[in-house]
Amino acid sequence: MGVTIAIDCMGGDHGPVVTVPAALEFLRSHPQASAILVGREEAITPLLGNANTEFGARIRVRAASEVVAMDDPPAIAMRNKKDSSMRVAVDLVKAGEASAAVSAGNTGALMAISRFVLKTLPGIDRPAIATVLPSMKGHTYVLDLGANVDCSAEHLLQFGVMGAMLVAAIEHKDRPSVGLLNIGEEVIKGNDVVKEAGELLRNSGLNFYGNVEGNDIYEGTVDVVVCDGFVGNVALKTSEGLAQMIGAFLKQEFKRTLFTKLLAVAAMPVLKRFKKRVDHRLYNGAPLLGLRGVVLKSHGSADMLAFGNALSRAAEAASNRLIERISERMASMNEVKA
Amino acid sequence: MGVTIAIDCMGGDHGPVVTVPAALEFLRSHPQASAILVGREEAITPLLGNANTEFGARIRVRAASEVVAMDDPPAIAMRNKKDSSMRVAVDLVKAGEASAAVSAGNTGALMAISRFVLKTLPGIDRPAIATVLPSMKGHTYVLDLGANVDCSAEHLLQFGVMGAMLVAAIEHKDRPSVGLLNIGEEVIKGNDVVKEAGELLRNSGLNFYGNVEGNDIYEGTVDVVVCDGFVGNVALKTSEGLAQMIGAFLKQEFKRTLFTKLLAVAAMPVLKRFKKRVDHRLYNGAPLLGLRGVVLKSHGSADMLAFGNALSRAAEAASNRLIERISERMASMNEVKA
Repeated sequence: MGVTIAIDCMGGDHGPVVTVPAALEFLRSHPQASAILVGREEAITPLLGNANTEFGARIRVRAASEVVAMDDPPAIAMRNKKDSSMRVAVDLVKAGEASAAVSAGNTGALMAISRFVLKTLPGIDRPAIATVLPSMKGHTYVLDLGANVDCSAEHLLQFGVMGAMLVAAIEHKDRPSVGLLNIGEEVIKGNDVVKEAGELLRNSGLNFYGNVEGNDIYEGTVDVVVCDGFVGNVALKTSEGLAQMIGAFLKQEFKRTLFTKLLAVAAMPVLKRFKKRVDHRLYNGAPLLGLRGVVLKSHGSADMLAFGNALSRAAEAASNRLIERISERMASMNEVKA
Repeated sequence: MGVTIAIDCMGGDHGPVVTVPAALEFLRSHPQASAILVGREEAITPLLGNANTEFGARIRVRAASEVVAMDDPPAIAMRNKKDSSMRVAVDLVKAGEASAAVSAGNTGALMAISRFVLKTLPGIDRPAIATVLPSMKGHTYVLDLGANVDCSAEHLLQFGVMGAMLVAAIEHKDRPSVGLLNIGEEVIKGNDVVKEAGELLRNSGLNFYGNVEGNDIYEGTVDVVVCDGFVGNVALKTSEGLAQMIGAFLKQEFKRTLFTKLLAVAAMPVLKRFKKRVDHRLYNGAPLLGLRGVVLKSHGSADMLAFGNALSRAAEAASNRLIERISERMASMNEVKA
């Protein structure tokens, strides 16, 4: 597929000790991909081992002297740290040297820098952050996840387009179904923005399913669930909390007595298979959508497996024309309107 | 505790075959409580067995000729079905014959009827629906859950007061902690209503913790989580969907081979204990707060165990002066303001 991923090696809770080995593993499993490791050379080089021999021109290090901290305000990170590993990685996408950038750093800073450097696509007012979650039927993509707190109906429509094109690119689905997150029929009062967004989506030419509710995310009713960033963030964080609690309860019950501990050992293969199906590391790598370039945000706490998944997802998005798909779709929608 | 619960026996997916046996069981476990079974006599009486002998004056049937359907628009249910079991149950609270009403019927209709018949308490603009959820540390109460879609900061403040008083009454906590549902620090843009609500809650005299995120619901960071009805509904439904998916995955993994099936049999006591801790039936019974009377909504699909829990929760709220607590607190807040 010949993609080149610019990797912010300094971002995230663990930095190079996770991002560099994950990059090497990514190059092993993607023999046609290349990687540019961005960050402090003295932190990256010792972790490369014989990578130059193994991968040759497919790997190179790009020095960047600064690091965006997790608590840097986005505006500060953007203005005062022009040689940060995050900024340089995004600059490489802008310059056409990389097909995508991946960072486990500060979300707000990554969004601000990406937006400033790459700019939004025609017809897109605001970039959004999407995530993929497991469902009973496969995967569900949800956006926005916190970039946009107060959204108009037009914004939600644009999220629908971006989400559908993301699924088309990554999951190779022709006409992904799109649902609009709403609340039960039995509710006294609807939300005007959501009602209007429903109208827009119905007339968008997308494969619009209609309203969905929170449970539909995990039931896999649709491929893409559209909501504003506040609601999306709450849905995601609530899910994380519930999954952790369920895992902790399950562990506690299996640890209760010697007998149940023995049972747990016997049941380990089953519990491991189960765990793998809901392992959030498999779902790491949230695309920033609506930009003139592919940028993915990895979870800050990502380990090697998780960060590697973000890299693979970035390669998939870049090699399947994600940006072109979104801009073509936006253009054709605007033609219909005009 | 001497409370009398008016039970809408016709509501819910199952009607009297669930509500009547649950009522009898409730009377057995609450020897000082009484029940008024409201609905069609011909549907209720055959299910009573020797209840009149067993409970004497503690049980009686109040005939109501109509039934609110799950798909009746709230306004229609209110105007055209004045002799519905739901309406009569709420009327009994208004008349002082019952200390609380419980229904598994149509939420919108129950809210509309309760609001019309009972009216809101002084200082409360809109009633809210609260639910209790399991957490790593015990229970978390969340409101609103869908009654109020567009909320002002003042509404969120009122939800905080109602939630805190609910926990004080039901969990016997002196100064329940209250959190305001918001999204991560690392987000580009805040939500103005939530920011303003934070200010109001900080100055309310409540034990205000500050902002919380979705995961805090299940981590048990605070006793009460306040949010608007759209967000609360999405958080709840998303949780339901995720819990169902996790349960289904766990079941599938244990059913994969003969060996894993045998394991499941051996592990049954562990799995049952686990299941009991996250059993949503234990958390059934969502109080409608802010009214001049105690009304609880049971899940429509509630079985006997679940409906019984809603009845117990109603008895607890009524016998611990829920309404008085809310109105006293609202009055003292308004005094401070004046």
